[in-house]
Amino acid sequence: MKKDRIRYLFIFVLFFVICKADNLKVRTEFNFPNILDYKTLKCDFHMHTIFSDGAVWPPTRVKEAWRRGLDAISITEHVEYKPYKEDVPIHHNRSYELAKNKAQQRDIILIQGAEITRSMPPGHLNALFVKDAEKLTVEDPIKAIKAAAKQGSYIFYNHPGWKSQRPSGIPKWFSEHEQLYQKGWLKGVEIANYNEYYPKVMKWMHNKNLTILGNSDVHQPVNEVWKFHKGEHRPMTFVFAKSRTKDAIRDALEKGRTAAYFENKIMGRKKYLLPLFKNSIEVITKNLDYNPKKKYNLQIHNSSDIDYKLKIKRKNQNVDAPESINLAAKKTTLFPVSIQNKVHREKRVIMRYEVQNMFTNYNEHLNYKLKFNIVSE
Amino acid sequence: MKKDRIRYLFIFVLFFVICKADNLKVRTEFNFPNILDYKTLKCDFHMHTIFSDGAVWPPTRVKEAWRRGLDAISITEHVEYKPYKEDVPIHHNRSYELAKNKAQQRDIILIQGAEITRSMPPGHLNALFVKDAEKLTVEDPIKAIKAAAKQGSYIFYNHPGWKSQRPSGIPKWFSEHEQLYQKGWLKGVEIANYNEYYPKVMKWMHNKNLTILGNSDVHQPVNEVWKFHKGEHRPMTFVFAKSRTKDAIRDALEKGRTAAYFENKIMGRKKYLLPLFKNSIEVITKNLDYNPKKKYNLQIHNSSDIDYKLKIKRKNQNVDAPESINLAAKKTTLFPVSIQNKVHREKRVIMRYEVQNMFTNYNEHLNYKLKFNIVSE
Amino acid sequence: MKKDRIRYLFIFVLFFVICKADNLKVRTEFNFPNILDYKTLKCDFHMHTIFSDGAVWPPTRVKEAWRRGLDAISITEHVEYKPYKEDVPIHHNRSYELAKNKAQQRDIILIQGAEITRSMPPGHLNALFVKDAEKLTVEDPIKAIKAAAKQGSYIFYNHPGWKSQRPSGIPKWFSEHEQLYQKGWLKGVEIANYNEYYPKVMKWMHNKNLTILGNSDVHQPVNEVWKFHKGEHRPMTFVFAKSRTKDAIRDALEKGRTAAYFENKIMGRKKYLLPLFKNSIEVITKNLDYNPKKKYNLQIHNSSDIDYKLKIKRKNQNVDAPESINLAAKKTTLFPVSIQNKVHREKRVIMRYEVQNMFTNYNEHLNYKLKFNIVSE
Amino acid sequence: MKKDRIRYLFIFVLFFVICKADNLKVRTEFNFPNILDYKTLKCDFHMHTIFSDGAVWPPTRVKEAWRRGLDAISITEHVEYKPYKEDVPIHHNRSYELAKNKAQQRDIILIQGAEITRSMPPGHLNALFVKDAEKLTVEDPIKAIKAAAKQGSYIFYNHPGWKSQRPSGIPKWFSEHEQLYQKGWLKGVEIANYNEYYPKVMKWMHNKNLTILGNSDVHQPVNEVWKFHKGEHRPMTFVFAKSRTKDAIRDALEKGRTAAYFENKIMGRKKYLLPLFKNSIEVITKNLDYNPKKKYNLQIHNSSDIDYKLKIKRKNQNVDAPESINLAAKKTTLFPVSIQNKVHREKRVIMRYEVQNMFTNYNEHLNYKLKFNIVSE
Repeated sequence: MKKDRIRYLFIFVLFFVICKADNLKVRTEFNFPNILDYKTLKCDFHMHTIFSDGAVWPPTRVKEAWRRGLDAISITEHVEYKPYKEDVPIHHNRSYELAKNKAQQRDIILIQGAEITRSMPPGHLNALFVKDAEKLTVEDPIKAIKAAAKQGSYIFYNHPGWKSQRPSGIPKWFSEHEQLYQKGWLKGVEIANYNEYYPKVMKWMHNKNLTILGNSDVHQPVNEVWKFHKGEHRPMTFVFAKSRTKDAIRDALEKGRTAAYFENKIMGRKKYLLPLFKNSIEVITKNLDYNPKKKYNLQIHNSSDIDYKLKIKRKNQNVDAPESINLAAKKTTLFPVSIQNKVHREKRVIMRYEVQNMFTNYNEHLNYKLKFNIVSE
Repeated sequence: MKKDRIRYLFIFVLFFVICKADNLKVRTEFNFPNILDYKTLKCDFHMHTIFSDGAVWPPTRVKEAWRRGLDAISITEHVEYKPYKEDVPIHHNRSYELAKNKAQQRDIILIQGAEITRSMPPGHLNALFVKDAEKLTVEDPIKAIKAAAKQGSYIFYNHPGWKSQRPSGIPKWFSEHEQLYQKGWLKGVEIANYNEYYPKVMKWMHNKNLTILGNSDVHQPVNEVWKFHKGEHRPMTFVFAKSRTKDAIRDALEKGRTAAYFENKIMGRKKYLLPLFKNSIEVITKNLDYNPKKKYNLQIHNSSDIDYKLKIKRKNQNVDAPESINLAAKKTTLFPVSIQNKVHREKRVIMRYEVQNMFTNYNEHLNYKLKFNIVSE
Repeated sequence: MKKDRIRYLFIFVLFFVICKADNLKVRTEFNFPNILDYKTLKCDFHMHTIFSDGAVWPPTRVKEAWRRGLDAISITEHVEYKPYKEDVPIHHNRSYELAKNKAQQRDIILIQGAEITRSMPPGHLNALFVKDAEKLTVEDPIKAIKAAAKQGSYIFYNHPGWKSQRPSGIPKWFSEHEQLYQKGWLKGVEIANYNEYYPKVMKWMHNKNLTILGNSDVHQPVNEVWKFHKGEHRPMTFVFAKSRTKDAIRDALEKGRTAAYFENKIMGRKKYLLPLFKNSIEVITKNLDYNPKKKYNLQIHNSSDIDYKLKIKRKNQNVDAPESINLAAKKTTLFPVSIQNKVHREKRVIMRYEVQNMFTNYNEHLNYKLKFNIVSE
Repeated sequence: MKKDRIRYLFIFVLFFVICKADNLKVRTEFNFPNILDYKTLKCDFHMHTIFSDGAVWPPTRVKEAWRRGLDAISITEHVEYKPYKEDVPIHHNRSYELAKNKAQQRDIILIQGAEITRSMPPGHLNALFVKDAEKLTVEDPIKAIKAAAKQGSYIFYNHPGWKSQRPSGIPKWFSEHEQLYQKGWLKGVEIANYNEYYPKVMKWMHNKNLTILGNSDVHQPVNEVWKFHKGEHRPMTFVFAKSRTKDAIRDALEKGRTAAYFENKIMGRKKYLLPLFKNSIEVITKNLDYNPKKKYNLQIHNSSDIDYKLKIKRKNQNVDAPESINLAAKKTTLFPVSIQNKVHREKRVIMRYEVQNMFTNYNEHLNYKLKFNIVSE
């Protein structure tokens, strides 16, 4: 019997697959607000399937992304590293081809990508908006990157402090990176990858005006790695895009309108993090009666998915307020405040906090002024 | 550059993969007791990978099995249905070869298997303990099954009421099955598969002395299908085996020492279900003082993973006890009992319950006598 | 030593209590939308403390309400039934007095209430907006209710099918109720109480223009009764009020602007349930290309806390759509739709569903038309 | 109408209360093994009700204890501090009297207790096995303690580093304590109370042969304070008792057979902690084939409720094993081990770990030797 002729089977088996796949078609959205005039897209631009060294079939990456609230992904197979090639013949564009139909059905933005996987320097780099990944199979790493750039790819430096290549864990900007950067080919860098985080990359973001990204680099099924039901999430890139389209993502990446979301931290430029924070919270109690004897229970609601950890920056002598406040994700938090006699003639009270888990530079937190009006009773 | 020559990359990339895979090496054991002189092995003898129409790489099935408390699995690729053959050249034994090393590392019993996938009758059948799946690619279904039997395979009838082949959902025993059964090739049948359950199969178990099985038939990553953190589980077969070995599993399958565990139900022969139930529970309160005025709060602990649903079978006129009791999984349950005056001279009180979610035949539940001693105060 | 003189202790012990109480000051908001020009307030108008037969100190009821997302509560002690009177001397207004300071601090609307607790008929009735509960201690039930009415109380009939008074479980409107109703004293009725639900009350709502309520009637700490972390909630009354004030609640109760939320059901008038449903969901996919061959995966987001269970009401011959759809709470749900050839010239496709768990009358569900535009590709 | 005469109401209202209370009669057992010849009883000897400054009715403390897996509790009202005395007339033995019937029904060991509540020194002390708490209302603290001792009470020092009395948080042993200790009245001390932990108390345990305790000192309903569904637990005392009786608890307290369980830590004497740890775990992989090239995945099962955090103490030069291992509660954990060539002639490999979250003295952890046999293949 020829294996590829059992046609009569196809109809019912196809039906079988469809029926079973219908099972769990539920998506959990992320709760992060849009900012300024941009949509806050949740993106993961680094992941693998069986077409390099991942453990899943490409459309599964789309289904995972849909179920877990992402807007855009890129499947970035290693161009050079194909451990399964004995079983899965090499075809560098194939992941994208196999996944794109599912992406369209689920309204997931799928960006063709590839990972150029070399020893350090320059290490591993991802190319997004690739047109033909076959052309990246060039031995010289600089030439491979050039080939990607020529296709109009957006290229970023992966896990620059990855322990396998940088045992210290401290990211390093090699002359090779400077060369690629000077040529205008290298425009971004991962500040978070899988289970690693490289705080020093914040300096590069500012000094070189690089775009920062956070990506999962997932190889296994995502559900085996992160306990989503316990609030865990994959590392991801927030892209502040004019619309929910591929072009708008490209535009945002080019202009550095991103933030990285890793574990319970968000890293990015102050101009995006401040509105992201402000749009996440609602100060429910806005006015305090002027009454120095009264203990107030102030309420702030945080509608986002992240616990914001506030720590007092400069004590206001007129107000007794907590040193630190945890604004729990998707909850309203109560904290006690009392006014001192001295506040008498002021109309407004400002408490200066910093958001400990939002980073605007290396070791710098987002500052936030919590303001209340003092009103006559 | 030739794609398969970038050797220098292999060392560090391999290390990369190993590091990341180390992440979540935690296994959740099932809590079902051993019975009689047998170990209660938790087995799933039906699943797919990218080598037929599944979505994962074969070793991932082993990792899933380990993490989720299984003892033994079989990867049973469709011999005839290979929708990914354009990308994954057909090689019927390959899943097993790729998974067996991981199985050894994790101490998971991996049984080579294959699914013979035809239109009804005889529909789909699984062969376990296959030696060479290549030999099953025979056009005539009976001959294909014969080829499997000749290799010493253990063969069972898959999802006999599967809606794609049996729109009524009612399992049917065709003459083809009778023929295979008469020849001694067909020895078992699935009573539960994926999200379907076929109660009528219990009659076949008794009438034909067939072995019943429950299997997942999973195609996607298991975590996408079942919410394990909410107590969901894949369908599985309890195999009551003399030891935790491949041979002992074979022996148990041959002798019908199995039960099927599907959603919140267990199906099997009374001789196995009764000790399974009894070994799961501990009646904490054993003696009641003779005191007809007293309301007792009796406590029963259920150490298993399943809620046992008890319903009164025959009311004992001497005891006021609840009509139904839910013995919550892994909890101690309290329920009120009071003794009537008439009980005076009795030494023992028996309350006859049936376990609503344990089935010993079609529409027949396991019976259980809850006994207490009446003692003088 | 005189017990009430150990003054030196008070300072630090008070501080002690404050410190510990600071611990878990986190509130989980309900997610139900406002409708029309009204705020959807979440209210529970029936509960007990140690001042009748409850198990907690009155301010604890306020803290529970705050933590669990309520806007307004009433503590309704039994006027007549005081099992703890040996330890807690009777004082019918005391619960309210003890709780009101905590209510102000937490911004919970506390409405003074009392439960007039008699044998059936008229059974138990709650009076809200009570001014002096001492005056309700009158032997004749009608006179007791009259006393409440004279204070300007809002009176409703509690758990009319409560099994202790109505073993059938079927609510009954006695002549005593008719008498109270005719006098204009009895204006509302509980359709849900604790773990009971009385569907027939929907008829009374329509025939007598009564206001329906759902209340917890909780005696134990709420966390012992409902597993909030698993999505369980106490029965409650949605009050559609012009503002978040006591007066606005009164106004809404008088005018019947309520719905009852019990387990996974909502009961109320169509004019409130329809906007409640519509404001809960967002149909993400609004336009379908005209393409009869295409299988669409439509997405609907449900931002509310309840799973809406949709069932097809009348099949649209031009559309293949699911018989039933579960719109999971706080999730986006995907379901397949395909257009028939016949749809060709239509501009709009309507699918008629009913929301199985929203009741607008006895055995009547809310109807909903799901609409899509057919656009040229 | 006289308030205490409405007799006709009592029957059905009582029934009402019983029905509702039937709801959630489920107990979650703790999973900690018995050790040596002792039962490991889970006890909480410090809590309050409305009879001092707590928020619940006394029998509720018994129900909470039963539902949450405790074996024994003591309700320890402040003798001097009665903020609710205006509403709840003072009666120092009343909590115990009201709770004891419920304790008998639920098989909870209820030990009568009281808290002698003074400024520091001697601060607050608990007396267990009190006979008449009325006799403790003596102004001089030493005399009050003497009165307790004379009744045969077991007395311990509460929260010795409690911040309200010791702003430093560092526990202090005052001369008053020494005096009480010398007289043989003061025999124990809390090392953990509510949300505080005092590591220095471990020194007192050894130097003065004091019994250590961990207690909740809970005032609110326990479910408001600890998220049991997330694995949180109240602080408690493990009592290693010859039987599950009041007398056996007394005996164990006198002889120092206790450990304290606070958050994810256990504190106690090595002779109890070592068997507690050993009986909690099962080393599944016991034998390693002699094969220096092989990477082993060893499995250890932890059947207890606590994650044990292992850290390597002294590196074995013959084995490559992880620096730290987290043995997750109620899970099996896998970790990689490889043998060096040098191991050749050894029969046994020992890896020396310390259990980071088990404390046997101030800053001293429990040591544990993980042993494997090397066998010929």
